[in-house]
Amino acid sequence: MKFVLAPDSFKESMTATEAVAAMKRGVLSVFPDADCVGAPMADGGEGTTEVLADALGGVVLTAPVHDALGRPVQARYGYVDSQHLAIIEIAAAAGIDLVAVADRDPKAASSYGVGELIGHALDHGATRFIVGLGGSVTNDGGAGMLEALGARLLDDAGADLPRGGAALARLHRIDLAAFDPRLAGTTVQIASDVTNPLLGATGASAVFGPQKGADPATVRRLDAALSVYAAVVAALTGTDVAVVPGAGAAGGLGAAFLAFFPAYMRRGVDVVMDAVRLADRMAGADFVFTGEGSIDSQTLNGKTPLGVAEVAAVHGVPVIAFAGRIGSGAEALYDHGFVALVPIVQGVSDLPSALVDGAANLERAVATTCRLLGMPRGPATV
Amino acid sequence: MKFVLAPDSFKESMTATEAVAAMKRGVLSVFPDADCVGAPMADGGEGTTEVLADALGGVVLTAPVHDALGRPVQARYGYVDSQHLAIIEIAAAAGIDLVAVADRDPKAASSYGVGELIGHALDHGATRFIVGLGGSVTNDGGAGMLEALGARLLDDAGADLPRGGAALARLHRIDLAAFDPRLAGTTVQIASDVTNPLLGATGASAVFGPQKGADPATVRRLDAALSVYAAVVAALTGTDVAVVPGAGAAGGLGAAFLAFFPAYMRRGVDVVMDAVRLADRMAGADFVFTGEGSIDSQTLNGKTPLGVAEVAAVHGVPVIAFAGRIGSGAEALYDHGFVALVPIVQGVSDLPSALVDGAANLERAVATTCRLLGMPRGPATV
Repeated sequence: MKFVLAPDSFKESMTATEAVAAMKRGVLSVFPDADCVGAPMADGGEGTTEVLADALGGVVLTAPVHDALGRPVQARYGYVDSQHLAIIEIAAAAGIDLVAVADRDPKAASSYGVGELIGHALDHGATRFIVGLGGSVTNDGGAGMLEALGARLLDDAGADLPRGGAALARLHRIDLAAFDPRLAGTTVQIASDVTNPLLGATGASAVFGPQKGADPATVRRLDAALSVYAAVVAALTGTDVAVVPGAGAAGGLGAAFLAFFPAYMRRGVDVVMDAVRLADRMAGADFVFTGEGSIDSQTLNGKTPLGVAEVAAVHGVPVIAFAGRIGSGAEALYDHGFVALVPIVQGVSDLPSALVDGAANLERAVATTCRLLGMPRGPATV
Repeated sequence: MKFVLAPDSFKESMTATEAVAAMKRGVLSVFPDADCVGAPMADGGEGTTEVLADALGGVVLTAPVHDALGRPVQARYGYVDSQHLAIIEIAAAAGIDLVAVADRDPKAASSYGVGELIGHALDHGATRFIVGLGGSVTNDGGAGMLEALGARLLDDAGADLPRGGAALARLHRIDLAAFDPRLAGTTVQIASDVTNPLLGATGASAVFGPQKGADPATVRRLDAALSVYAAVVAALTGTDVAVVPGAGAAGGLGAAFLAFFPAYMRRGVDVVMDAVRLADRMAGADFVFTGEGSIDSQTLNGKTPLGVAEVAAVHGVPVIAFAGRIGSGAEALYDHGFVALVPIVQGVSDLPSALVDGAANLERAVATTCRLLGMPRGPATV
């Protein structure tokens, strides 16, 4: 019997690797001879660096960069020497978790540190990138990143703009003369589940600005500034980031990647599943177990369990998902290849206890599920 | 496919009948053609009256009696005309839930109302009794019950004792001249999981007295009073209630039943399972689902799920138990015929929400379990 164990992290409770270990203990407690293939997953968000670096035999490096407010920060990224592959989460430099709520300033916040991080990886020899967009506190269209990599963003007097999204209202020209020439020789996979365009009612400022500290007036101001930026970018590169799906990801970092890099954007879980060859590893499996902290109707928006279920369906392997919480609307997932959605909590509990007990609960829920799967007489299939 | 649905109540959340309904909805949502046999269960405690009256085609009657403090109370009991069977929970008259904590007085509390309740049933034509011991607030050895049925408890001056356990220290003689003669023609099944004797360190006063309000000095005083009572009873009836297992149940009501009634004592769940012919109804079943509010190592002490599992094991039907909480030590149940213990909560929740959501959670957990049981390829049996 073969089980593929492919959970995401259970946020704040356990990493994907820890979740795999708990699942494995649960399976082996019931089926001691089972073949357990561990495949810790991620969706381009938190944990992607560690999961991919580990799965691909890489290392985790640290680069001294600047956060969105220009403060020094040690940013982690993954590097796989054999593939010259760098794995970057933009949140390591421009992350919202690095900036206290009171300090958030979407007008001034800059993605400069993301550019520094990419430069560090280029120096290290990277020719391929996997970049997880998500968790940004910036709203600068990726202008800071471009600047860190040698571009100049100039006003109509030829002076460099200050950093941050608001200043882009005065953008007149982008000078790429000193833009890092190594980038042209790279391939960049952008892992992102966001399909929003850069501008407008569904754009970066309107949809994601508020959680970064933008009030309605600031949202309007940033959207106007990014429209100036979009016009300059379109004239220069031919890419109309104003409307391209995904350009609005990570405060517009999506736009900069799509317009200035040899980049293509894919759903995060697909990037990770391909990188770890999950489909190949499902061959001959009897069951795939996936999961994450919470499963509900949002899971249909490209979360890890959905991606795993889709691949498993192609290979005809039944999928069972485990979660700390099975929320309302989760039943809709039954139309997308899941055999069962199993909550792991074992009784009434508060959140702190549930987080602490996560691994034990997951192990127990997996064991219970295996006992049910091992029933001698299963009735007709559902 | 045939499912036998035999849960106890989920205390404070749903009655056994409501639990059966939720289970049935869960099963039918996955297997619309399944044959669901509902068998609401009880263990002699709360809910036994309604479960048995309903299962046996009886009615629930009300008798005006007195509670442990002598206050009027309307006590419910079940009556099955075709069998001349009365189903009594002693807690309906002598129950701890009827007396506020501040009012509890184990020295004075009397089981008199239990005798009144039995008398009411005798007047109604009962010749058979099922009596659930449990939940009493009394500690009088059942003396009050005997008095209500015509016995006289006399001191050495030939005067009637006041009610309550403490007065038994002065007991000299029990006069049965007026004891209700109809009792001799009855059979009484006592449903009780308690095996404690009447006296001593494991006796009624020492073990159950404190929860009824007895401090250590009162425990000693009550135990001494019951030892006088036990000696009188033994001399009169030949039954040495001081040491007979179960005599200590319900503040010594067990002793009175065993010594003065044509009574035998059985585990509560066995009484109920026999009455509803659960074993017969399991014939040809694919699965038995049971459950109750909490399942843990205490479940091995004769709780409903254990009883159901034991009967199912005899018939070779796999048993799955559902509970609001799967507590520590529950794994030990896997050595007693359970295939799986399934928690029903779907995520972090506080107790009030979990109680309110109990039926929805149970339905969902049952549906998820059915989905797992219906998997097309089950690996080798565990």
